[in-house]
Amino acid sequence: MLCYTKRVAPQKIILTGDRPTGPLHLGHYVGSLRKRVELQHEYRTFIIIADAQALTDHAEDPGRIRRNILEVLLDYLAVGIDPSITTIFIQSLVPQLFELTAYYLNLVTVSRLQRNPTVKDEIQQRGFGASIPAGFFCYPVSQAADITAFLADLVPVGQDQLPMIEQTTEIVRSFNRIYNCSVLVEPKALLSEVPRLPGTDGKGKMSKSLGNVISLCDSPDVIRQKVRGMYTDPKHLRIEDPGTVEGNPVFAYLDAFDPDREGLAEMKAHYERGGLGDTTVKRRLLEVLLAELEPIRARREEFAKDPAEVLRVAEKGTEVAREVAARTLAQVREAMGINYFSPCAVTLSQ
Amino acid sequence: MLCYTKRVAPQKIILTGDRPTGPLHLGHYVGSLRKRVELQHEYRTFIIIADAQALTDHAEDPGRIRRNILEVLLDYLAVGIDPSITTIFIQSLVPQLFELTAYYLNLVTVSRLQRNPTVKDEIQQRGFGASIPAGFFCYPVSQAADITAFLADLVPVGQDQLPMIEQTTEIVRSFNRIYNCSVLVEPKALLSEVPRLPGTDGKGKMSKSLGNVISLCDSPDVIRQKVRGMYTDPKHLRIEDPGTVEGNPVFAYLDAFDPDREGLAEMKAHYERGGLGDTTVKRRLLEVLLAELEPIRARREEFAKDPAEVLRVAEKGTEVAREVAARTLAQVREAMGINYFSPCAVTLSQ
Repeated sequence: MLCYTKRVAPQKIILTGDRPTGPLHLGHYVGSLRKRVELQHEYRTFIIIADAQALTDHAEDPGRIRRNILEVLLDYLAVGIDPSITTIFIQSLVPQLFELTAYYLNLVTVSRLQRNPTVKDEIQQRGFGASIPAGFFCYPVSQAADITAFLADLVPVGQDQLPMIEQTTEIVRSFNRIYNCSVLVEPKALLSEVPRLPGTDGKGKMSKSLGNVISLCDSPDVIRQKVRGMYTDPKHLRIEDPGTVEGNPVFAYLDAFDPDREGLAEMKAHYERGGLGDTTVKRRLLEVLLAELEPIRARREEFAKDPAEVLRVAEKGTEVAREVAARTLAQVREAMGINYFSPCAVTLSQ
Repeated sequence: MLCYTKRVAPQKIILTGDRPTGPLHLGHYVGSLRKRVELQHEYRTFIIIADAQALTDHAEDPGRIRRNILEVLLDYLAVGIDPSITTIFIQSLVPQLFELTAYYLNLVTVSRLQRNPTVKDEIQQRGFGASIPAGFFCYPVSQAADITAFLADLVPVGQDQLPMIEQTTEIVRSFNRIYNCSVLVEPKALLSEVPRLPGTDGKGKMSKSLGNVISLCDSPDVIRQKVRGMYTDPKHLRIEDPGTVEGNPVFAYLDAFDPDREGLAEMKAHYERGGLGDTTVKRRLLEVLLAELEPIRARREEFAKDPAEVLRVAEKGTEVAREVAARTLAQVREAMGINYFSPCAVTLSQ
């Protein structure tokens, strides 16, 4: 008689995270947080609060980063990230990441960094011109350290972040080839299939500084006000006029949140043939948003009562992250033969 | 009655060191080692074995760096660096230096690094062209971390290294200004007054790879052979011909080593008016060199008998260095307000 046992593949590893430059908003929620809550049950998940990366272009305002670590932690817990299965950690408190970055910087040329399209775009967006901070210029390499330190198989990203994964893959291949080892793992991009949510002003990019975002921590009153002020179809002046759905942020938000898909399809048709006012559509959006966000906000308020306990989540997660990163770093140093004083080191006199 | 007490100023701190890419040679000895042996009695001295910096342009050959750590340590002990008063440590084993580098990289622009004359020169010398490793490009910032981590007041350098000290000074000023503190110390260059020793082939730059150096660990036979093969005045064909002292490496070496200054002055005059053969001058140089180097080589051989003990010197020194660097890093994080979980931290909820 044969005995069948289920073959359990080792759990795949995910690394994902955010720069703590502000509280998280609906863009983060739709594009990534919502998915993370599912993925954490399927994958060993590490979530990095990338404070050191945020400092690369906010060196003059570390206070903003410090304050937002708690905000981001609250957002994570409120949406349902479960710290008993997911490791949430603070980048700058895992010193191994800085050391890995240093070794990887030797495997990447300056001209390769200059060609990185994401960095190019961001340099333009931030208006750095010739005065890019060197740390910002090097951040794709620091990201490679974040990803590889946890031997991540998968990194959830949007299309625009693909060059970062490519850069990491190149570093992994160079490292494993030069040091003749298989210590580092090539990550794969887990592409988000959700289209990017526009700002409430209809502009492409959501940004807290543009004031066009709904944050996860916004109160119902604030949400009501923001929905009321949302950009719609500027040509849809009278209720009886036909309106345009495409490029209309109210419908983009309904697409992302309305669970009643049939009702939404009908509403779109009605709007397009005329006779449906913006106020009605916005009322529906508000209803849908409050249904989704109210439980999140309630949980957030609950967690916010004990910030010390919330910070302990990050502190514990950071301890775990440090252990994992230290294991990887030890293997990296061993592969490079620079593990001078470790018990099983290649001795210096060889 | 007045009681006079001698006011003791706190001991000034020196940081100096070498990249472990080969055993040290007469160039190092004349330009820096000899001086360090004196300075260590006057200043609190830290000597860095800069293996991580050496990796920035030797990433493909970490074995060479590993092997030469022991060689450099032996050279230090042989010339008289006293580990009971001087802290000798290995850069890559002081992880705080990587983290400081990361924060400083945010205070320096890419265009500023491109303007660094030392980096420009070295990029040319090493023939990197467009393919400079990013780590090499950033190494002035990593040097700033080395210098500031130990709050060094003085850094012994040659003229060509002055831009590195300038870069460090700029970083110190930016840091103290942005974070409104006085944590970091502005270093001063301690300029070497000794002219640079030429290679034995008369070429400007000494380099092991050019085979034009006399190493501290060379045996008397090897030294004899190298002195015999030294470049002199190519126009000084017959003994009776007048010879040229200027640019003649044999006399440059005698200038650096011959304790009999009067005898040397006479010898130069004799050489210039003719009648003094190269063989005689080289015989004097050999005599002088062996007198200086034999005790060093004998001590080196003695130390080399117990490499484990020699490595323990670096291991102990590295422990001390880590403690000092950790203190500085804690102050740096506190000044930046990113000391999230330390007992006296600015709390995250502020």
